[in-house]
Amino acid sequence: KMSTKSYLSSAADIACLMSTKRVFLFDCDGVIWNENTLVPGAKDLLTRLKQLGRQVFLVTNNSSKSRAQYVAKCRKLELPIEEADIVCTAAVAAGYISKLKLPGVTYVIGSQGLQDELELHGIKCCGFREDDDTAVHDQGVEQFGDAPLRNDVSCVLLALDTRFNYLKLLKACSYVSAGALFLGSNEDAFLPSGQPSPTVPVRLPGTGAMLSALCVATQQQPAAVMGKPHRPMLDYAVQLMTEARPDQQPPPLSQWLMVGDRLDTDIAFGRRHGMDTVCVMTGCTKPADLLDLSEANSELKPNCAAESVADLLPHLAEN
Amino acid sequence: KMSTKSYLSSAADIACLMSTKRVFLFDCDGVIWNENTLVPGAKDLLTRLKQLGRQVFLVTNNSSKSRAQYVAKCRKLELPIEEADIVCTAAVAAGYISKLKLPGVTYVIGSQGLQDELELHGIKCCGFREDDDTAVHDQGVEQFGDAPLRNDVSCVLLALDTRFNYLKLLKACSYVSAGALFLGSNEDAFLPSGQPSPTVPVRLPGTGAMLSALCVATQQQPAAVMGKPHRPMLDYAVQLMTEARPDQQPPPLSQWLMVGDRLDTDIAFGRRHGMDTVCVMTGCTKPADLLDLSEANSELKPNCAAESVADLLPHLAEN
Repeated sequence: KMSTKSYLSSAADIACLMSTKRVFLFDCDGVIWNENTLVPGAKDLLTRLKQLGRQVFLVTNNSSKSRAQYVAKCRKLELPIEEADIVCTAAVAAGYISKLKLPGVTYVIGSQGLQDELELHGIKCCGFREDDDTAVHDQGVEQFGDAPLRNDVSCVLLALDTRFNYLKLLKACSYVSAGALFLGSNEDAFLPSGQPSPTVPVRLPGTGAMLSALCVATQQQPAAVMGKPHRPMLDYAVQLMTEARPDQQPPPLSQWLMVGDRLDTDIAFGRRHGMDTVCVMTGCTKPADLLDLSEANSELKPNCAAESVADLLPHLAEN
Repeated sequence: KMSTKSYLSSAADIACLMSTKRVFLFDCDGVIWNENTLVPGAKDLLTRLKQLGRQVFLVTNNSSKSRAQYVAKCRKLELPIEEADIVCTAAVAAGYISKLKLPGVTYVIGSQGLQDELELHGIKCCGFREDDDTAVHDQGVEQFGDAPLRNDVSCVLLALDTRFNYLKLLKACSYVSAGALFLGSNEDAFLPSGQPSPTVPVRLPGTGAMLSALCVATQQQPAAVMGKPHRPMLDYAVQLMTEARPDQQPPPLSQWLMVGDRLDTDIAFGRRHGMDTVCVMTGCTKPADLLDLSEANSELKPNCAAESVADLLPHLAEN
């Protein structure tokens, strides 16, 4: 008869994973913390990994914060994390665009944290606050035919924007249709909401919802998406390691471990790029989700399942 | 050798269609008018059809105007059209929702014209102007966790709204996720823009783009879509005929003709529901689009192709 915890991996399997890895990637929300509350054991695990000289990355699809904002959050939570340990989509996008050395400006749908990160990388931006105003909306759709558009936009980046509106969608749609490079920060359909549920719980739309609107309006798919499960996040982590130790080759992906709570982002990210994966139950995946996975969903199937990051610490080898 | 006009149907084929039909459905933009300019011959055709006692409907997916607003537009253009001749998505949605006799209120993303039509049908609404304000957006996404939600929303209707914003998407998403009936006005991906093109032409996102955002955020499809090619528009036309002549059966669909310029809405609407169809070249479809149609796209293939509605008038039988 199956125990209620039969979805959990054996101690031996976890120990085997933990002892062979050199690079540890952790998703944040639902893994290291839930909103502003640390997951018990997360601090001890990160601290011990660093003491043992392992490479640690916090890898998040949340595009609303810059690396500096994440460092500030980690300090508040007393986590031993620095800028070079943070792989957030804002930074990945900034790195990705700056490498392309595009002429002109990038039209951005996103937050202040994203703007900060882009400007740090010397990327000229437009959008943001200038298109927040809805006064221009007080007219029929026909009048939008002469909405003011720039002719120097070479790239459109769509990220989470709580000031998303029709004018921003129209501008992004026009620029992409005219040939601008179309980039998305991530495809998360909705955000976890840690609030206790009132009668009607709030469901927060994610970047994936707005991205889908732009895909439909332009009849195009993005040329690249920064966030998990896509490749740019991995490239950025490699770049950070290379910058920190130019004389060393980053370890092969067989020595990387991705720890996450979402199957379609975290686990798929690890599996698609050749890393082993651990799924924890402190976020949005429930044990039943793991048991329900069919063989057809092999990309979503983690190598290991654990209750939480606290269960990983005892299996960390000292070597 | 093919003539450049080989995509056009023969006079005999058009005459055959025109002489056997009793109910004529016309899409508006790109067929009867382009923005505020009548397509030449449209007025004569509509006038003659009415003189001959044919049933005429203007059938539009544009959800931003009420029937009263369409009648006003037709008066201005001197077209012989009354309220009972207009099948617009605002009216179809109002009829659809009022028949369901749902308790509570409908959360509406849409325009003033839509609100007018819903209120005429006695439907209690919320949304509209009250969620236009972006002042509430000046905060991180986490603060939206306590966005004010009502507990009496039984239906969410999403239509074209140039004041669409993140808060509206969040509320619609929350209500649908909590079980409200999910309705869309139409799935048009973008709107035709009649403006002469500057360097970067404006591309106007359609309702389909916003609808897609709500589908992704809720992980649900709408329970029903009002506009072409879907059924509710047809049911509404039948209802209008029945109300006008309660003693008569509406003619069978073999005696209906749908005249339109869009293959995926107008032509698919006719074909899916058993009507013959004519595609005209005064709107968004070009001759090459017709020649490119494969056998797999049979639903998009019109029975006849004509340059414009002007080419239909000479073939109208007097009987």
